[in-house]
Amino acid sequence: MRRDPARLTFEVDARDGAARSGVISTAHGEIATPAFIPLATKASVRGVSSAEVEALGYDLILGNTFHLHLSPGEERIAAHGGLHGFMGWQRPIITDSGGFQVFSLAHGGVADEIKGRRGPGEGLAKVKITEQGVKFQSLLDGSDRFLSPETSMDIQAKLGSDIALAFDECTPFHADRDYTAHSMERTHRWLDRCLEWHGENGPVRQAVFGIVQGGVHPELRRESAEAIGAAGVDGISIGGTLGQGKDEMRGVLEATMPRLPGDAAVHLLGIGEVDDLLMGIGLGIDVFDCAVPTRLARHGVALAPEPGGRFRIDLAKGRYADADEPVVEGCPCEACRRHSRTYLHYLARGKELTGTRLLTLHNLTYMRALTEGGRKAIVAGRFQAYADAVMAGGPPWTA
Amino acid sequence: MRRDPARLTFEVDARDGAARSGVISTAHGEIATPAFIPLATKASVRGVSSAEVEALGYDLILGNTFHLHLSPGEERIAAHGGLHGFMGWQRPIITDSGGFQVFSLAHGGVADEIKGRRGPGEGLAKVKITEQGVKFQSLLDGSDRFLSPETSMDIQAKLGSDIALAFDECTPFHADRDYTAHSMERTHRWLDRCLEWHGENGPVRQAVFGIVQGGVHPELRRESAEAIGAAGVDGISIGGTLGQGKDEMRGVLEATMPRLPGDAAVHLLGIGEVDDLLMGIGLGIDVFDCAVPTRLARHGVALAPEPGGRFRIDLAKGRYADADEPVVEGCPCEACRRHSRTYLHYLARGKELTGTRLLTLHNLTYMRALTEGGRKAIVAGRFQAYADAVMAGGPPWTA
Repeated sequence: MRRDPARLTFEVDARDGAARSGVISTAHGEIATPAFIPLATKASVRGVSSAEVEALGYDLILGNTFHLHLSPGEERIAAHGGLHGFMGWQRPIITDSGGFQVFSLAHGGVADEIKGRRGPGEGLAKVKITEQGVKFQSLLDGSDRFLSPETSMDIQAKLGSDIALAFDECTPFHADRDYTAHSMERTHRWLDRCLEWHGENGPVRQAVFGIVQGGVHPELRRESAEAIGAAGVDGISIGGTLGQGKDEMRGVLEATMPRLPGDAAVHLLGIGEVDDLLMGIGLGIDVFDCAVPTRLARHGVALAPEPGGRFRIDLAKGRYADADEPVVEGCPCEACRRHSRTYLHYLARGKELTGTRLLTLHNLTYMRALTEGGRKAIVAGRFQAYADAVMAGGPPWTA
Repeated sequence: MRRDPARLTFEVDARDGAARSGVISTAHGEIATPAFIPLATKASVRGVSSAEVEALGYDLILGNTFHLHLSPGEERIAAHGGLHGFMGWQRPIITDSGGFQVFSLAHGGVADEIKGRRGPGEGLAKVKITEQGVKFQSLLDGSDRFLSPETSMDIQAKLGSDIALAFDECTPFHADRDYTAHSMERTHRWLDRCLEWHGENGPVRQAVFGIVQGGVHPELRRESAEAIGAAGVDGISIGGTLGQGKDEMRGVLEATMPRLPGDAAVHLLGIGEVDDLLMGIGLGIDVFDCAVPTRLARHGVALAPEPGGRFRIDLAKGRYADADEPVVEGCPCEACRRHSRTYLHYLARGKELTGTRLLTLHNLTYMRALTEGGRKAIVAGRFQAYADAVMAGGPPWTA
């Protein structure tokens, strides 16, 4: 840990078991933790303006280095005030490294596969991984591209994010232990190159987080956690596959968390299901990002406690055609204050934009309430009771 | 005119030449005129929630009888509080009669063809027009349907709109004079049937507007205006083809307007280009509806004064890739207050939902400002100067 307060500070203000609440301070302001980070993959949270993301109470959004590099390019973004100026968002921004996306090209759709939902994909042609970095072709125009620790940090420097993520190999679920171990070691070497480049060339107020890899192997996760923690990083993200189910994910996190420096902010990459987020907070994770809440909204699905469910109600289903109650009773969002399940069912069936809009507001309201409720519960020393109440169907804003 | 104040009143509060400002009062409140009506074809203004349409300052929206009849059906809407309750909108609603849509099926895409943009379409199979009404098949499920003056009024009664439109034949542009004349006469007979049904069965607080037809033939328009004005209607809409260009449109309106009762609110169906709207206000039209402002937004086009242009800038064009100015300087909408053309160009190119969102807000803000500016100018006795200033590129909110 380099812990340069000019870049980033993290102050824990309450603890409750392993769970903790705190404040991350960055060049563009503070992030109250635990926090959920909406994705602004292509410089926007899908369907929601920057002002609206602010109004929903979010402190931090996540931009995507890979996509922004391909279009409009980091040079154009730099010329228009960096990512903050370009998208009209003056609160903190974290950017991922592009590693996940280029390895998706290489391994074939990592997003599903990394979570064990399908078998190994065919490596796509035109992607070549070496110690130096990754060569690939742009899907937009076929041009040859190259991402490496140095180029990723260079792009993120031009994007001007508050927190840059180190360039890692996102090891897929189907990789065997040997590949996973070698990949992890390369990720550690790449972190050193990221930090070296950033120390010489990076924006003085941009923080760098290292990424823990090691797949589903507890001993590799422990080794990676210690290596990343010992490097000169400003915070830590946990990446790569977390296994096929909730139990395996918990096992991976339980192996990892105790080996991380206790004073580092910890970010769990790509996780944002309601139950996973509560589990993660309970284990001491501080920030989470995930595409699921906004993606579900585009498919007509609302986050809501449902008996025996996964906190999802699919409003397109016929059972909601005549249901005058709101999506979630007591929810402060506009969809729930003003509209019925009947209306949202109709909009979802018709794939109407207003349905996407209302459900996006609802799902982001729910996620924000979930971490805010968790934060208050930690401060009050009753996080487990809060998590149990939400899991039992209680709403996050009253639990 | 039946002028039943329990249904609807229209008070003119200022005149400036033929232009006038006023207030239409309905069961769900008042509409300041001149007014632009956003379309809520399928019970939502695309991508904008009911609360947001209110916040944009709109008094009135237009729901579509044909689409709502097919899904979710007027019975379901009636069971959930009518269209107001169903969609969570408690201000006035006007519903069209479904005539335009069924005749689109019959004549083949009336929407383009009616404006003279293409030749006669082939009549689609499965649509049969008789004196009694129109038989057609649902595009959703193939079921047999029938719309007539009585069934259209029945559906609109169940939707519970404040203003129902009479069921008319929307005569296409390619029809010859004889067909147009016979069609117009049938529309007049159908109006009598609508009023008879509504008098016996309609909601006591629902107003009925008759629709002037007559195609591009001034003498038919005059005849239709007098016939509709003499019938027992609460207000008047002008429908059907207005010809191939701005001059022909003006000619049709100049033939029509003097023959209408001076105390009736006048609605011009389907017209909402900036210049057409200013022309219409100048001729005494009170309300306008049009899909264009919201549809353009979905295609990346902003309403804006542009030299020699049609008040449209296509933000996807390369010339906006590096343009730090807002879409329209001084515009109070969120897109213009907070974002650059550069950003909106990027979102439009990527077909990002947030781009659609921001441009929808901008275009609806522009249209609202245009009629509000027109209203103030009429009250101040300077409407023509206002229209000239807007046409010369001045913004509607400062002119």
